[in-house]
Amino acid sequence: MCVRADGDCAVMLGRSPASLLIREVGVLEEFFTPRSVAVVGASRDETKVGHAVFANLLAGAFEGPVYPVNPAGGVILGHDAYASLEDLPSVPDLAVIVVPAQRVPGVIEQCGRVGTKAAIVISAGFRETGPDGAALERELMALARTHGVRILGPNCLGLISTRSGVNASFAPVMPSVGSISFLSQSGALGTAILDWAAGAGVGLAHFVSLGNKADVSEVDLVRAWAEDEHTGVVVAYLEAIGEGRAFVEAVRDLVKRVPFVALTAGSSDAGARAVSSHTGSLAGSRVAYDAAFRAAGAIGAESVEELFDFAEGFARQPLPSGAGTVILTNAGGPAILATDAAERHGLRLASLEAATVEALRAVLPPAAAFYNPVDILGDADATRYGAALRILADDPGVHSAVVILTPQAMTEPDETARLVVDAANETGITTLAVFMGDQSVARGRLILKEGGVPNFPFPERAVATLNAMQQHAVQMARPAARACAVSGDIAAVTEAIAHARAAGRTFITEASAQRVAEAYGIPVPASGLAAEAVAARELAARIGYPVVMKVASPDILHKSDIGGIVLDIEDEAALDAAYETIMGRVAQRMPDARVWGVTIQQQLPPGREVIVGVNRDPSFGPMVMFGLGGVYVEVLKDVTFRLAPVSEADAREMVAEIRAAALLRGVRGQQPADIDAIVDVICRVSALVTDFEDIMELDINPLIVGDRGAGAIAADIRIGIGG
Amino acid sequence: MCVRADGDCAVMLGRSPASLLIREVGVLEEFFTPRSVAVVGASRDETKVGHAVFANLLAGAFEGPVYPVNPAGGVILGHDAYASLEDLPSVPDLAVIVVPAQRVPGVIEQCGRVGTKAAIVISAGFRETGPDGAALERELMALARTHGVRILGPNCLGLISTRSGVNASFAPVMPSVGSISFLSQSGALGTAILDWAAGAGVGLAHFVSLGNKADVSEVDLVRAWAEDEHTGVVVAYLEAIGEGRAFVEAVRDLVKRVPFVALTAGSSDAGARAVSSHTGSLAGSRVAYDAAFRAAGAIGAESVEELFDFAEGFARQPLPSGAGTVILTNAGGPAILATDAAERHGLRLASLEAATVEALRAVLPPAAAFYNPVDILGDADATRYGAALRILADDPGVHSAVVILTPQAMTEPDETARLVVDAANETGITTLAVFMGDQSVARGRLILKEGGVPNFPFPERAVATLNAMQQHAVQMARPAARACAVSGDIAAVTEAIAHARAAGRTFITEASAQRVAEAYGIPVPASGLAAEAVAARELAARIGYPVVMKVASPDILHKSDIGGIVLDIEDEAALDAAYETIMGRVAQRMPDARVWGVTIQQQLPPGREVIVGVNRDPSFGPMVMFGLGGVYVEVLKDVTFRLAPVSEADAREMVAEIRAAALLRGVRGQQPADIDAIVDVICRVSALVTDFEDIMELDINPLIVGDRGAGAIAADIRIGIGG
Repeated sequence: MCVRADGDCAVMLGRSPASLLIREVGVLEEFFTPRSVAVVGASRDETKVGHAVFANLLAGAFEGPVYPVNPAGGVILGHDAYASLEDLPSVPDLAVIVVPAQRVPGVIEQCGRVGTKAAIVISAGFRETGPDGAALERELMALARTHGVRILGPNCLGLISTRSGVNASFAPVMPSVGSISFLSQSGALGTAILDWAAGAGVGLAHFVSLGNKADVSEVDLVRAWAEDEHTGVVVAYLEAIGEGRAFVEAVRDLVKRVPFVALTAGSSDAGARAVSSHTGSLAGSRVAYDAAFRAAGAIGAESVEELFDFAEGFARQPLPSGAGTVILTNAGGPAILATDAAERHGLRLASLEAATVEALRAVLPPAAAFYNPVDILGDADATRYGAALRILADDPGVHSAVVILTPQAMTEPDETARLVVDAANETGITTLAVFMGDQSVARGRLILKEGGVPNFPFPERAVATLNAMQQHAVQMARPAARACAVSGDIAAVTEAIAHARAAGRTFITEASAQRVAEAYGIPVPASGLAAEAVAARELAARIGYPVVMKVASPDILHKSDIGGIVLDIEDEAALDAAYETIMGRVAQRMPDARVWGVTIQQQLPPGREVIVGVNRDPSFGPMVMFGLGGVYVEVLKDVTFRLAPVSEADAREMVAEIRAAALLRGVRGQQPADIDAIVDVICRVSALVTDFEDIMELDINPLIVGDRGAGAIAADIRIGIGG
Repeated sequence: MCVRADGDCAVMLGRSPASLLIREVGVLEEFFTPRSVAVVGASRDETKVGHAVFANLLAGAFEGPVYPVNPAGGVILGHDAYASLEDLPSVPDLAVIVVPAQRVPGVIEQCGRVGTKAAIVISAGFRETGPDGAALERELMALARTHGVRILGPNCLGLISTRSGVNASFAPVMPSVGSISFLSQSGALGTAILDWAAGAGVGLAHFVSLGNKADVSEVDLVRAWAEDEHTGVVVAYLEAIGEGRAFVEAVRDLVKRVPFVALTAGSSDAGARAVSSHTGSLAGSRVAYDAAFRAAGAIGAESVEELFDFAEGFARQPLPSGAGTVILTNAGGPAILATDAAERHGLRLASLEAATVEALRAVLPPAAAFYNPVDILGDADATRYGAALRILADDPGVHSAVVILTPQAMTEPDETARLVVDAANETGITTLAVFMGDQSVARGRLILKEGGVPNFPFPERAVATLNAMQQHAVQMARPAARACAVSGDIAAVTEAIAHARAAGRTFITEASAQRVAEAYGIPVPASGLAAEAVAARELAARIGYPVVMKVASPDILHKSDIGGIVLDIEDEAALDAAYETIMGRVAQRMPDARVWGVTIQQQLPPGREVIVGVNRDPSFGPMVMFGLGGVYVEVLKDVTFRLAPVSEADAREMVAEIRAAALLRGVRGQQPADIDAIVDVICRVSALVTDFEDIMELDINPLIVGDRGAGAIAADIRIGIGG
C-alpha cells in the first residue's frame, strides 16, 4: 500500500514491487515493540557508543533477547558477542547499528539476508559530512530499499519506547512512562530534553531522534503515533520538513485523536542560515510554517519551555469543553498577572452566574473577591479551596480553572493539592495549578503531578498553556472545512501554460492571464476588439458604458503618447467621437502603422484596492495571500497567508484578520466593501493554483472591490509558471 | 529637605516643620540596618504572625538586640517580653508592629515618645478593608507625621535585609545574600518569590513588601537603593505607581548606577479591574507604563520568570560593552533556537574576523562550524570550550557570549563550567550559560552559579536576558537627552486658559487654541479680519495667495449654506470678485445680519496628514502622542507615546518608530515629508503641555506636513483644560 500523499511511491522506492510494502505504517511497530534486538557494533569499551547502547537495552524493562554483534567476539556485559547477524539464534526484529559508517551498508545487506526489517543507524559519517558521506548514504538507502529494510537515521541518537522498555539509544537517562511522544530533529537537544524530563518527572511514551532522515521521517512517525494508543500528545522539535504536504495531511489525521505541538527552529532569517550549515536542508519560512500548522491543526510553541508546558497540559488534562476560564487564588498579585496574561492571549474570563456568587458567599469570608478572579484570601485553607473550586465548576459558564496558591501562614499546600486533584477529576473541568514557591509547595506539587493536574511555577505559563488547549479545543470543534468548490476550464488554462512554455517564457502574458482568470471565474474587465465604428458600438453596448477605447495596432507601443487612448466614454455619441479622434490622430501621427481597429474595455469602477496572491513554498506548496493593496502591503506588510486549497471559511477569516480589516467593513460612514466578492476570488485563485502545479506565483494587484453587492474585478493579473 | 517632585512636601506632611525632615532618604537606613529592633505584638503562640516575626529576627544573622513587646508579658523564645516600648533597656531603631489594627496608632505614639523613627506595620485591617479601615490608616499616618516616624505598610509582609541579617517579616525563608533588591506591591507574591529564590539559589540584598504604602513607597525605596552599595540591581513587582513623576525621576537617578527591572501588573483592561478590587488603586495604562519606563530607563519584564532571569543577568554579569554576540555550542539544535530568539529580539550576532576564524580552525576539528553560531561539535570536551571561548572573546566585534552545552557522551559539564567561569572573568565579556538538561549538568550549573555566570535551562531565556542587558547598555551609553528648548509666550496661554475658565468651559475655543499654538511657535494657518475690500487686499498680500475668504458675522452660523465662503483665491482680482460675491449673497440671503467684514485665511497647502496629541495620565502626567492621521490612527492604531517633556531625539524616534514611518520617509517615488517640521511641532507641543498643567488633552489633527523643507501646519487644534 502506498501512503505517500503524491501517490508516487514507486518512483521513490525504486519501482520494486516488494519494496512498496515497506511504506506500510505498521512496520514501524518493529521499531517501537520489537520482540528481539541486535546491537551491531556492541562494544566492551565503556567509552564507546556501542557499549552505551547495548547497556541501555539491557538496563531497561525490555524483556526480549538483546544480542551483541561484534566480529571481534568476546563477552560484553556478560553476553557472548556474535560475529554477525547471521550467527544469531533468532532473527532480530530490530537492528541497532553503531559500526563505522563505511561498514553500515554491509550490515544493512545482512539485515536484508536474515530478514530484519527495521534498523536504527546511530553511526555518523553520512550526508552531514559532505559529498562522500552523501554518496555513502545513498548507497545505504539503495540497499535498504532493495532488501525492504526501514532505516531510522543515520546520524541519530536512537529511539526509546517506555512501554516496551526499549532504550535503543545512547541517551544516559530513561524517561518515565507517560503519554508524550517526542520526535526531535536534533539529537543533542533530544538528550538535553530527556535529561530535563527525567528531572522534571515528565513521562514519555516514545522518543525518536530522526538524524539525517534518510528514510523514516517526521511524517512516518506522525502516522505511526496516530494509531498508537499510548500516545496522548505528539511533541516535535523540527528544523526542516521535507514532504510538507504529506506532513500536513498526516498531522491533520493525527489531531483528530491527539494534539500535535511543535517547536520549529530556523524559521527566522538568521536561524535559517544556521539550519543550512547544520543539516544541509532548506528551512521553510515562518509564514509557511504558520500556514501549514494552521492547515494541519498543529499547535506552535515559541520555546522549548513552552513546548513541554503545552505537552504537560495536553497530556494530563482534558480539553476545555467551552471558553469560560476562572482564576481561583489566595493572593491578588499572581491573579492579576494571570488576568493580564489571559487578556494578552485573548482567553476569556467567565462571568459568574448570580447563583455561583451566592454559593461562594455562603462558604467564603465576606472580604473575599466573588468575581473572577475569585480571591479566597491569604488565610485560605484546603477546604476553602476545594469548596470554591467545586462551586465554580458547577457554573455552566466555567470550563477551565487556573488554581493559584501562594504559601502563606495558613496555607495547606498538600491537602489543597489533594482537594484540587479530586475536584478536577470529579468535575471534569480543565484544571491547571500554579503552586508558587519552592520548598513550601514541593510536596503539594508532587501530589498534583500524581493526580494528573499539571503545575506551573508562574501564572503566565499556566495561562499560556490553557490558551493553547483552548485554541485546540476550538479548532477541534470546528466542522471539517472543505476546499471551495470551484470547477474551472482546465483545457483553457492548460493551453495558456503550454503556449507560454512553447514561447520559452516563465510567465503568462497579460491577455492570456486574463483568459486564465476567466477560465476560473475570476472577474476581469470585459474587453474586445472592434475593427470599425459600428462593431465598436455593438461591443460597447454589450460590455456596458462607461468604456475605455484604445487603438489596436501591433506597431503602436505607446498608445497614450500619440493620443491613442480615450477614457470615460459614457455613451454612443462619445464613442463615435472617440473613434474619430483616435483614428484621426493615428492617421496624422503614425500614418504607416497597421491598424486592426480599437479595443473596447470596460471602464473599471471605483472601489477599494486589495491584493490576492499566491506563492509556492518548496515544501508546503502553494500559499494564498490576501491583503489591502498599496502601502498596506508594501509598508505595513499587513497580509495573511493560508495553504491552498482554502475553504470558504478560511477565505472569510483571511479577509477578517488583517489589521486593516475595518477598512473593508466600512469606517467613517463608508459603505462596507463587497467581502463576499473577495472571498469568492480567493476561493477561485486557490482552486486554480491547486489544479495547476505549474503556477509558481500569481498576483492579482489590485483587485478592485466595490461596495457590498457591487462585486470585485481583477484589474491586473500576473502569473508566473515553472521554468 | 523636601524631595517631592512637586515641591509640595509641606502639604503632604501636614506643614509641620519637624516632619519635613522625615522625607530624608537616609532615614530608611533604620529599616535596613537598625542597631536594635522591637517586635510589638511578639507572641508565644506559634501559629501567630507575632511569633513568626520574632522568631525570624532571632534566627537570622542580625546581631543587635531584638526586644519582644507584649503587654501580657511572659517569656517568648527564651526572651522576657516587655510591656511596652517605654520599658525597653534602649530605644529601638526599628519597631515591627503586629498588634491588631485598632491598637497600631497607640504603638506609633509610643514610637514617637521613645524616639523610634522607623516602624513596619505588618498588621492588616486598614484601607484595604473599607472606609473604617481607611480612617484608621489616616489616623495612623497623622500620628506618624506628628512624631516623625516613617511607616512601612500597613498590611505588609515586612522587610528582609540579608547583609544586616534582618528578617523583619513573617516569610518562612531567609534568602541568601546577593545583590538583588526586590520590592513587591503584593506580599503573597513576595512570599512565593522568596521561597522560589531560596530554592533556585537566587541571592537578595533587600526584600520589601510595601503593603498599603501609607508612607514608604516604591519611590522612597528606589531612592534609598540608589545609594546602597550592596544593591546591584533593583527588581520590582508593581501594581500601581502613585507619584508617577517622582518615580520616573527616582528611577532615572538609580539607573545611572544600577539597573531597574520591573513587572507591572494590571496594565491590561481586565487586569486593571483586578487591581481596583485588590488595592483600591487605579492602575496606569500599559501605554503610560511603557512611556514612563522608557523615560526612566527602566526595563520591563513580561513575566515573573523573566523578571528574575533579567535580575540574575544584571546581578551577576557586566553589561555588554558592545552589540556583538556570539553563540558557542556543542549542538546545532539549541544554537538554532538561540539564533531564532536573537533574531526576534533584534540582537545582533557578531560577524567574526578572519583572524578569529583562523585561530578557531587551529584548535577545533575541521567539521566544526566556524561562523557564528560556533558549533564545536558533540564530542567537545571542556578544553575545547575554554579555548574557543577565549578566542571568540579576543575578537574585537564580540562583546557577549551565550555558551550552550548539551550533555553528550564526551561532554564534561563540571570542567567546562570551570573554564567558562574563568574565561568570563578574565576576558570580561558578558557571558550567559545554557547548560541544558538536569542531573547530568547539575554540578556544572552549581559551578557556574558560584562563578557568577548565570545559567538558563533553555536558550530562549538566555537570549531574552542578554537582550535586556544589551538594551540597557545602549540606553546607558546614550548621552543624557535634554527636553527640547522651547520658550513660549506664557502670558498669552495663561490668558487663553483663564478666558476659557471664566466662561465655564473645559476646552479652549478654536480661535483661542490657534493663539495658544502660535504662542509656542506651532504653525497655524495665517488669518485675519478685514472690514472692507481694500483691507482684505492688504491682508491677503501679507498672508500670501492662495487664500480662503469667509464672511465674518456673529449672526451667520452656517457660512457655507449661504455661499459665505470662497476657496482657492489665487490673486487680487479673484479676491475682489470673491468679496463682491460674498457681500452680494449676504445682502440678498441674510439682509439683517450684522457683518464685520471678511476673514482671510491662508489656504492650506497639500501634504501628508499626521496627528500630534497629548493625553495626561493621572499618575505619570502628560504623554505626547504621534501617528499618521486618519485610518492609521483610527483603524491601525499606529501611534507612539512619550512622557513629556520630550527631547529632540525622542521626537525624532517617535516619527521613525511608527509602523507606517516609511510613508513619511517617502515610498513609491514620493518625496520625503518634512520630518524636521514634525519633530519641531512635537517639541513645541511637549513644551506647551509641560509648562501648563491645566492642559489635560490636546489634539493637532491633522498636522499637514509638506515635502522636506516645506514645513508643517496645524490645520485643526483642540485643547481641553481641567474642569
